Order: sequence, then C-alpha cells, then structure tokens
Amino acid sequence: MAKKNALPPSLKQLLEKGDLQYQSGISVDCVIFGFHEQKLKILLLKIDAVDKWALPGGFIKKSEPIEAAAYRVLKERTGVQHIFLQQFHVFGDPDRSDASVHQKRYLNYGVKIPKDNWLIQRFITIGFYALIDFSDENFKAEVSDENTAWIDINKLSQLMMDHEAIVLKALEALRSQLAYLPIGRNLMPKKFTMPELQKLYETILDRKLDRRNFQRKMLGFDILNKLSEIRKGGAHKAPFLYSFNDKKYQKALKDGLYGSW
Amino acid sequence: MAKKNALPPSLKQLLEKGDLQYQSGISVDCVIFGFHEQKLKILLLKIDAVDKWALPGGFIKKSEPIEAAAYRVLKERTGVQHIFLQQFHVFGDPDRSDASVHQKRYLNYGVKIPKDNWLIQRFITIGFYALIDFSDENFKAEVSDENTAWIDINKLSQLMMDHEAIVLKALEALRSQLAYLPIGRNLMPKKFTMPELQKLYETILDRKLDRRNFQRKMLGFDILNKLSEIRKGGAHKAPFLYSFNDKKYQKALKDGLYGSW
Repeated sequence: MAKKNALPPSLKQLLEKGDLQYQSGISVDCVIFGFHEQKLKILLLKIDAVDKWALPGGFIKKSEPIEAAAYRVLKERTGVQHIFLQQFHVFGDPDRSDASVHQKRYLNYGVKIPKDNWLIQRFITIGFYALIDFSDENFKAEVSDENTAWIDINKLSQLMMDHEAIVLKALEALRSQLAYLPIGRNLMPKKFTMPELQKLYETILDRKLDRRNFQRKMLGFDILNKLSEIRKGGAHKAPFLYSFNDKKYQKALKDGLYGSW
Repeated sequence: MAKKNALPPSLKQLLEKGDLQYQSGISVDCVIFGFHEQKLKILLLKIDAVDKWALPGGFIKKSEPIEAAAYRVLKERTGVQHIFLQQFHVFGDPDRSDASVHQKRYLNYGVKIPKDNWLIQRFITIGFYALIDFSDENFKAEVSDENTAWIDINKLSQLMMDHEAIVLKALEALRSQLAYLPIGRNLMPKKFTMPELQKLYETILDRKLDRRNFQRKMLGFDILNKLSEIRKGGAHKAPFLYSFNDKKYQKALKDGLYGSW
C-alpha cells in the first residue's frame, strides 16, 4: 500500500479542536456572480477528495459576526476581498449535510473521522451573494489558486451537496432584485453600450428582451450618463457609450427604480 | 426563605437534555405583523422572569427543517398557525445572546444553570416574518394565552436582547417589499375602501401619502376589483369598496407591480 501523506496541521486542528474554535452546526456559503464574455459565471472551488465543485464556504468563529465569517472564508479560500456580500437565504434541510465529503478528504491522509466528531453532523448554512466586475484587474489577479474557477451558470455540473440549489436560489434573489433595483454597476465595466447592458439583463433573466423596450425603460430610470464617446471598431454603426450616474444609481438603490411611495 | 415552585418537567428536560434534542447555538424568531384599528402591531410574549417582551422564538430540532421549526415554535407559543412565514434575515452578532434571561427563568424555580450548559452560549437566530389579518375570527380566537399581546410598533419598549432590532429589520424588509410587490391581502379585511388601504401603506411607511397619487398608482397596478357596494354610515360621502383580484394579485406577486422585464 502506498504511503499516505501526513495530515496537514490545519486539517488536524480542524478535526481535533474545530469545535472549540467554531460555532457548531452552522456554516456560511458564498455565491459570487461575475459577468464575463456575455456569460454569467460563479466562482467555484474544486474539492479533489470527492471530485466535485463547491461554493467557497466555511465555519463561523465563536466570537465572529456572521458577515465577518463570510468575508474571511471568501478571502482565505479564493483571495477575493473588498466586495459587497449580502445574505439571501438560510439552507436548513436536515439532510443537506454530507459527511462523506469530510471523510474522503481525511481518508486521503489515512485518517478516519470518529463518528462523534463535530464535523459529522447536520450543518445549517447561511447563503451570501455578491456581484463582481470581471474586468477589474486587481480582482482577476488575486484569484490565482488553481483550484478556483469561474463556471458558467448554464454549465454547472458535479456540485457538492445542495450547492446547485443554493446557486439557483441566489439567482432567484438576483432576478427579484432586477425587478425593482438597479443592477450592473458591479458587473459591467465603467463604460458600456446599451446592447452590452441589455445582454447582462438577458443573461440574468435567461431570455431575450425587446431592444427598443429595454432602451426606453432603462433610459426612463434616469440612472445612466450618456457619454460623448462612441465604441469604435465594430462592423455595425458605432453605438453610444454609457456609464452609471453614481448619485442617481445610489438613490435608485435606496428608493427603487420606480420611485418611493 | 419562601419555598420555590418545583421546576416544570418541560424546563427540566430543556436544561438537561435540550442539547440532544435541538441544534446547538441556533434559533428561530418570528415577527408577526397585524394591522388593527389603523395601527401596525406585532405579536409579542411577556417573559415574566425578566419582565420583558420577546418575539415568539425557539430552537430547531435535530431532524427538523428550519421552516418547520418556525411554524412549530409559533404554534406552541402563541397558538397561531396556517400563516405564511418567510425568512428575512439572520442575526449573528456574537454578543446578541443574553444568558441572564435563561438564568433568571430557572432561578425562579431555585435552579442554577451550570456555566457549561448548552443554553449558556452564543445563539445565532434566523428571523421569519408574516403578515396577518386581524379581522380573521379564527385567528383571534386562537391567541388566548394571557402572556401574548399585540403591541403597536410605535410603542415598543422593554424588548428582550436584540428583539427590537429584529423587528426594525423586519419592518425594513416589509417596506422594501412594498416598493415592488402587492401587499395587504393578508392584512386587510376582504372589502375595504381606498382610504383604508392608503392608511395601511402610510402606517407601514410611517408617513403621509398624497390621496390622488395613491389612488392613481394603486388603480394603475390593476390588482383591485371595484365592488358595486359602498361603505355606509360615515359622515362623509360614502366611499367605494374594493377587494383584491386574487388572480391579478398572484401574478403581481410573481412578476412585480411594474411587470417583468
């Protein structure tokens, strides 16, 4: 039999003393949306032990606010920081946890997890989501871990446990937000054309929208600045460039796109 | 020293075996809104041991979905059932739990809780909220516990722990919902006048609205049926009665008041 690698100290600590360091039975999971090459993607981690993809997630320290835990976990596991995360749902199905994920991970090092270990229990998880602009150079540079990847939401497969359901629920929250709040400032580059913005909406909603209707509605919200530049180099008539008007965008985030009552 | 009453079996069980029955460190709390006599009220329980008011809340059984726990807790503690509860936020401040609530409750029976008991720890709580029509006779009949009361949200005082912050966050969720979804079917009687519906909106938003604007906007959403009856008996011109159009209301709940993209 091949000699197993020694258990890394961090995994030994988690197994033996994790219950002293972390809240028991509760975790956080992050759905990070990015828009890239006209596709909506999410940030996933490959869990080699079970050959599946997982949302960046982890535990909550005994003295840590839950939001802080979500930011810490995201940074530790993907390098991502300085983004706006928001809670969207708690996933509490009693059968959602899968002990075999931990078991296989530890078995790779020849370690068998005792049945009464804190890792082998039901975990309720708090879902957070965030929208990220792919074109942000700083951001791209930090995601360098080879186990991290941006996966097209239409090509999700082999997700761990209930992580696909968590992604779908986050997508539902995002679509509901689209109905009354501005969206896009964290997903689009600083300057964009109207067709590019429309493509973002179509991608999130997963259906085609009428071009004129979209433009009329979007301009009606009065959250865009029309720039004097145009996008050059295409085969078609050069389209105008727009940017979000920060002040009006903020107001619409607060009052909704249709104004307050 | 006066003889203390014996510890009730349910409290003894909770203290000694609660950690075997319930998930550790996580709870649910319910904010139940009702609209009565032109005031927005919430259902609270008086906790005699600390002389404070609390949201109906409790623990999650080891094999219980979290939604089921919220419904069970609400029924056990207030008699309320058959309502639509929805998650709105998780409250996870590491300092939110107050062990003295449990300690005082048990001390009333002369029992001191050991420091390492499961009750004396940080609890993260999942907030649920619901809207209820006060005029529903079945509903009123069931809330018979003398420790239960409907308290005006403008007259909240002496709430336990962070329960006031939980109520305010629920109110924020309700207001945000008001901006793009229909509301009122679970809060208003079956037939109502336009001024009565406006009063509901004003109460939730905590400010006056323009009468004509409100009526125009509300009729524009096309979710009301104008009835042939009028409300009689008032000093003013008898106003028309309306009811919600169930089918259109449901569609608006799904697509938003401003239609889908």
